[in-house]
Amino acid sequence: MKHSADRSSCLKKAPSLRVGVIGATGMVGQELVRLLERRGSFPVGELVPFSSGSQRRTVSFRGRRLAAGPVDQAALASCSLVFFVSSDEVSRRLAPGLAGRGIWTIDDSSAFRLDPGVPLVIPEVNAHVLKRSSRLIAGPNCTMTPLAVAAVALHRGAGIKEVRLATYQSVSGAGRSALEEFFLQVHEKGRLRVEGRAPVLGGSAHSALPGPIAYNVIPQVGGFDAEGRSVEENKVAGELRKVWEAPSLKVSVTAVRVPVVRGHAMAAWLTLGRPLSPAAARAAISRTPGLKLFPDGDYPTPLAVADTEPVCVGRIRKGATSRELCLWLAYDNLLKGAALNSVQIAEELLRRGWLA
Amino acid sequence: MKHSADRSSCLKKAPSLRVGVIGATGMVGQELVRLLERRGSFPVGELVPFSSGSQRRTVSFRGRRLAAGPVDQAALASCSLVFFVSSDEVSRRLAPGLAGRGIWTIDDSSAFRLDPGVPLVIPEVNAHVLKRSSRLIAGPNCTMTPLAVAAVALHRGAGIKEVRLATYQSVSGAGRSALEEFFLQVHEKGRLRVEGRAPVLGGSAHSALPGPIAYNVIPQVGGFDAEGRSVEENKVAGELRKVWEAPSLKVSVTAVRVPVVRGHAMAAWLTLGRPLSPAAARAAISRTPGLKLFPDGDYPTPLAVADTEPVCVGRIRKGATSRELCLWLAYDNLLKGAALNSVQIAEELLRRGWLA
Repeated sequence: MKHSADRSSCLKKAPSLRVGVIGATGMVGQELVRLLERRGSFPVGELVPFSSGSQRRTVSFRGRRLAAGPVDQAALASCSLVFFVSSDEVSRRLAPGLAGRGIWTIDDSSAFRLDPGVPLVIPEVNAHVLKRSSRLIAGPNCTMTPLAVAAVALHRGAGIKEVRLATYQSVSGAGRSALEEFFLQVHEKGRLRVEGRAPVLGGSAHSALPGPIAYNVIPQVGGFDAEGRSVEENKVAGELRKVWEAPSLKVSVTAVRVPVVRGHAMAAWLTLGRPLSPAAARAAISRTPGLKLFPDGDYPTPLAVADTEPVCVGRIRKGATSRELCLWLAYDNLLKGAALNSVQIAEELLRRGWLA
Repeated sequence: MKHSADRSSCLKKAPSLRVGVIGATGMVGQELVRLLERRGSFPVGELVPFSSGSQRRTVSFRGRRLAAGPVDQAALASCSLVFFVSSDEVSRRLAPGLAGRGIWTIDDSSAFRLDPGVPLVIPEVNAHVLKRSSRLIAGPNCTMTPLAVAAVALHRGAGIKEVRLATYQSVSGAGRSALEEFFLQVHEKGRLRVEGRAPVLGGSAHSALPGPIAYNVIPQVGGFDAEGRSVEENKVAGELRKVWEAPSLKVSVTAVRVPVVRGHAMAAWLTLGRPLSPAAARAAISRTPGLKLFPDGDYPTPLAVADTEPVCVGRIRKGATSRELCLWLAYDNLLKGAALNSVQIAEELLRRGWLA
């Protein structure tokens, strides 16, 4: 590894940055490295990738294979910016120390999202909360980010009071081991055929998810609290209130894992402070950057939007009451749900001239 | 075929009935025949199965293979009871004529469900609307029936005002051709593996469903109306109002097809006329026949409840407001969603002594 290589070469055309990625070999980490490579909007001078744990893998960047081993504090200390796309535990252990030393630290874990001293940022929604003195920045949950983007124009225009959300979350959101488990289960079932009756399938072995996911849906993402809400459901509620600066917003979520590889989707019901027609909602939403609005009669699906950057919105229509609208979202959970939002935060820091 | 065989033999131990099934070779039809065989609560003297169209297949019943060809009016005319588990078109063409001749006609299609002269019946919910003079009886939509059962105790106890529903509907609900298409798509993708990045899958050929369903979810079940609501979403709303006799009930549904073989699930938000605790809701719900209530921390999934009869309910908890409860349902869409409800209607007619 050449992590501690001569740094001056990176500074010839300022700002050409030394950028660390902790968790670079994970599902989100690999997408983040690819985004840094392909967006071209971010001047990575040297990429310094680390794995999350003790394993040693490689990461491909600009045609080279870079070693990604366990975290090396000395190598990190010379970075201008470090992305955390690893576990809460790793972020808790390392992120505050780095930020304390003045290194910009963009954390995709949930460790600091609700910390009042840490900005929780979706650039299209609340870039104004970034502060030059707050070097530790959190990115929100992969389910909440796209909803916050899709509905922020409605929230600003008509004051959203209540949010109800049913999610259709892909297995890649639960990480590599869950995805491997899913594929094993599919292969174990073999070649399914319709012979008279619809087949009745049994469950499969599972350990990464709380139940078999092949040909199934699981209404549990994380453990349940005493009120019966899952960790994921509470994350969405708490983080949405923080990002929209709406402490009294009422949020109720049913978070469900579905047998999809990439791409989350959700059905949302939004109760507004005043009636708004679907046409007016479409007009307002269409002005939000990062969104792709589908015309009436069409809609995005996870399969169609996987590996694309926008938050895709369709099926905007009246809800149960005159002040309610329904909409349908689909997006790549690994991109705008996670890696892309982190990269966009870094791009915003760059735009402000805060990175050097 | 012996459809017009001597009828007197069936009447030796009254009532031993001659029972027609139109659509007996379809997904729901085959489950219906199996239920008649295994429940033992219904005295079928002779089963008279027909296919939906012009094809000729066989149906297995009590160890015999019975021919199931195109509908034969003469054979139908000698039945005491005819189940329709075919298309709206077939029901529209044949059911009123049979009922007009005094034959009990239980129709699982949507053709007559909202007809004011036709009882729309879920025995656990509204058996009281059955009338000896109304020989044409409709069974509701496979998505609406289980919700109507699960929530009827809450509706009676606390007056449900608003219902919001996100569905997770299995492919078997769209019929045999959809299921065959789904399996072909899965097989076409072959052996999936996680190699670094999460795979990005392309779409597949499709014609039975509006898009590829393998590794995808599709927020469309039936065509859309001018307001952007799908046929399925409108069915649920209209039929729930009729069955609960609640014309002012507000209902908003997002109906979504998921890559599951058998078993529908749904996330429901119920706004009540007065606050009700989750514990009180559980106590009320647990008294409804046909329900299986899962304890806190546990929940039903489609894979676990496929091929079982009850409507399974879990995750009863507070919703977005003090008057709202959330719950999660899963059930076999071919059984309580369709075939079982039809058989239960017939059993109720028998109990009343109306069948002979």
